[in-house]
Amino acid sequence: MKKPRIQLLLTGNELMSGDVVDTNSTMIAKKLEEKGFLLQRKVTVGDDVELLKQEIESISMMADVLIVNGGLGPTVDDLTAEVLADAVQQALEENDSALSHLESWCARRDFRLDGPNRKQAVLPKGVTIVPNPIGSAVGFSIEHNDCLIICTPGVPSELEAMLDQTILGVLGDRFIGLNKTSVSHLPVFGLGESTIQRMISEGIHNWPSNVELGFRASLPLVDVKLTTQSSEAQEDRERCLVELRTLLGVHIVAEQETNLPRCVVDLLLQQGKTLATAESCTGGLIASQITAIAGASAVFEMGVVSYSNRIKHDLLNVETATLEGHGAVSEAVVREMASGALQHSQSDYVIAVSGIAGPDGGAESKPVGMVWIAWGCDERIDAQCLYFPGSRIYFQKLVAAVGLDLIRRRLLGVEETPLYFKQRKLPRKFQT
Amino acid sequence: MKKPRIQLLLTGNELMSGDVVDTNSTMIAKKLEEKGFLLQRKVTVGDDVELLKQEIESISMMADVLIVNGGLGPTVDDLTAEVLADAVQQALEENDSALSHLESWCARRDFRLDGPNRKQAVLPKGVTIVPNPIGSAVGFSIEHNDCLIICTPGVPSELEAMLDQTILGVLGDRFIGLNKTSVSHLPVFGLGESTIQRMISEGIHNWPSNVELGFRASLPLVDVKLTTQSSEAQEDRERCLVELRTLLGVHIVAEQETNLPRCVVDLLLQQGKTLATAESCTGGLIASQITAIAGASAVFEMGVVSYSNRIKHDLLNVETATLEGHGAVSEAVVREMASGALQHSQSDYVIAVSGIAGPDGGAESKPVGMVWIAWGCDERIDAQCLYFPGSRIYFQKLVAAVGLDLIRRRLLGVEETPLYFKQRKLPRKFQT
Repeated sequence: MKKPRIQLLLTGNELMSGDVVDTNSTMIAKKLEEKGFLLQRKVTVGDDVELLKQEIESISMMADVLIVNGGLGPTVDDLTAEVLADAVQQALEENDSALSHLESWCARRDFRLDGPNRKQAVLPKGVTIVPNPIGSAVGFSIEHNDCLIICTPGVPSELEAMLDQTILGVLGDRFIGLNKTSVSHLPVFGLGESTIQRMISEGIHNWPSNVELGFRASLPLVDVKLTTQSSEAQEDRERCLVELRTLLGVHIVAEQETNLPRCVVDLLLQQGKTLATAESCTGGLIASQITAIAGASAVFEMGVVSYSNRIKHDLLNVETATLEGHGAVSEAVVREMASGALQHSQSDYVIAVSGIAGPDGGAESKPVGMVWIAWGCDERIDAQCLYFPGSRIYFQKLVAAVGLDLIRRRLLGVEETPLYFKQRKLPRKFQT
Repeated sequence: MKKPRIQLLLTGNELMSGDVVDTNSTMIAKKLEEKGFLLQRKVTVGDDVELLKQEIESISMMADVLIVNGGLGPTVDDLTAEVLADAVQQALEENDSALSHLESWCARRDFRLDGPNRKQAVLPKGVTIVPNPIGSAVGFSIEHNDCLIICTPGVPSELEAMLDQTILGVLGDRFIGLNKTSVSHLPVFGLGESTIQRMISEGIHNWPSNVELGFRASLPLVDVKLTTQSSEAQEDRERCLVELRTLLGVHIVAEQETNLPRCVVDLLLQQGKTLATAESCTGGLIASQITAIAGASAVFEMGVVSYSNRIKHDLLNVETATLEGHGAVSEAVVREMASGALQHSQSDYVIAVSGIAGPDGGAESKPVGMVWIAWGCDERIDAQCLYFPGSRIYFQKLVAAVGLDLIRRRLLGVEETPLYFKQRKLPRKFQT
């Protein structure tokens, strides 16, 4: 048995025109990886007989497995069976087992088996059927150029069922997976990719060559991913993890893929504490991210979106004099917002933000991108001014993330000043 | 000038492992199509020097344009510049214009220009720079095998800016697109794809063959897309649009690609009116969607996230007796939430929601997925019970969308009962 070179051929005009985002190949890759198989390459073309035939020819000559996805449906633009027959030089014929599947599928639904549907049973001679437990189109496979070609439907639920019930088993019987493939994720907040890279280069000597280091930026987190391909490498990976934990410290938000609101809700649940929000420029984004997490109702009672001065006064008890004297985007106001929210909500912790999301509303000393954040509890509320120039959406996402990170740090008892306080400082020219 | 064969090479281990869904190629295809260019083929491989080099070689021999996406970042797994230099047989050198971009990018952020970052200025000799108005990595292009190779970053916002500001213009100057391609979008809310398809089949006879009809579901909207390839067909498309407007009526939310919060903000701005929100189960999602729209501060002053009974009473004046007598998810409570929010905010319109997002918290007569929505103004508040079983996130998104759609209909003066009131009715078995 050998490790297979697996390639993917995706077909469909909708994949070429930008009408549809391809999630099928992601699903296939993920399921293959779970079984220890890696996808080597994927190619996507429209519903074009010549292009499809060329790809089947060339991929079958360089790969051990070719999974074709799409083009099995009943309509004229579904070409896979026809093209495959041509490529492998087999006649098309009505396949008995595909036909009986179609008949019973139609019977269960009180559908008439009509011409277009019946086309789905016309397959190249000599194929092996891949049962479809959900839809009308069966999958099928055939050997060509020493490559196992497996044709699968584009409907995600049908593809998934075929992978789970048949295809992954067939591959497991024929090929040896990288059974020891093992991946660790360290989601990091507050450090950019290049900073992490530099810290690792400078801080960890002799990084083992059998531990693959990868980064994935998924705003606002960077996922640091360590992959090993053998059981021998696992010890090296553990050593790297230990060093990374020391090196990156509190910037590591978890030991598995996650997001910041989930971290915060988990910490609040563990400590039996509650949180309230008072949001101006983020307009409810922090509250909605927290309440998107199942179980949030145990830790979250109140959020106020105070988009005007009047509401800051009426609902959060911010003094009119403070608003008039300091302006809505100020340390004094955001501190009073935080206190008012704590008082009304009787929560243990609070996040309050007031800033200028733009594109309009900036002033000389208070530019678009400037924000005051206050966070803490009754005993101690801290406040910080930060600067996130960029689009409105980018600003709102980063401010929400920083607010959540500051509460995360407080809940963990971390007193270290976040690096982003310095990096995201309001530039001197705006400071009055 | 000729029509170009355009191919795409996507790189990144995260695209091969199933960690990330590729949305960049969808964006590229869409923008190319809008300019009359079609994407012919796309190939995806991991961060592997040999595979990347082979693909650049073979694609440059068969295509007129190769857009390479990804691998421009500062880390060790970003290989594009190195591989391209090898493929086109040019030395790598520090590019002056890329370096000065990097320097000013870092200076604006008070960042130190370090080794990993500096790597982003090391490019093959002879490239033309594609400016990056957002991020640190510039794009670059070079001719090879009579093919224009353009390297772009994987960060979607940076890719988008480069396409809009440089790349599409370059392609337009050099190649002739299918210039008569013309697309109309009708975003629709409240009707599913198959319902729209059936309505069109039954309601519009002799659909012209030169007007291509497409659907793209992007929850919660369905985009109905009409594409024509010649100026003669445009008249037919106009006729189809007229018929579709009659057929789909108020379900059409705009005459261009948009989203529901933007529609609502636009209508409020046009009418000089304001809106307040009182959210329980959506936890601030409606407020955050509205405040994500630039200019929302002119129409939105207050949102309350009342995740507990106490807060419903304290901040929205819901009577304790109402809460105790009817429960938080009830017509009486959601109506009092709406009135209380109107009163506090002095806004013209209000949306209030209270429901059970799940996965826990359901009861026999109040199942997970049930929601009461109240909407309107001082003169008239309406309330409706609906049922959206499914995941927590799906429930929250749909409830927010329906709330916004109900206000949209009210602002438009539409009195017709929405179809989804019947389709999303709470099943009889739960009604007590």
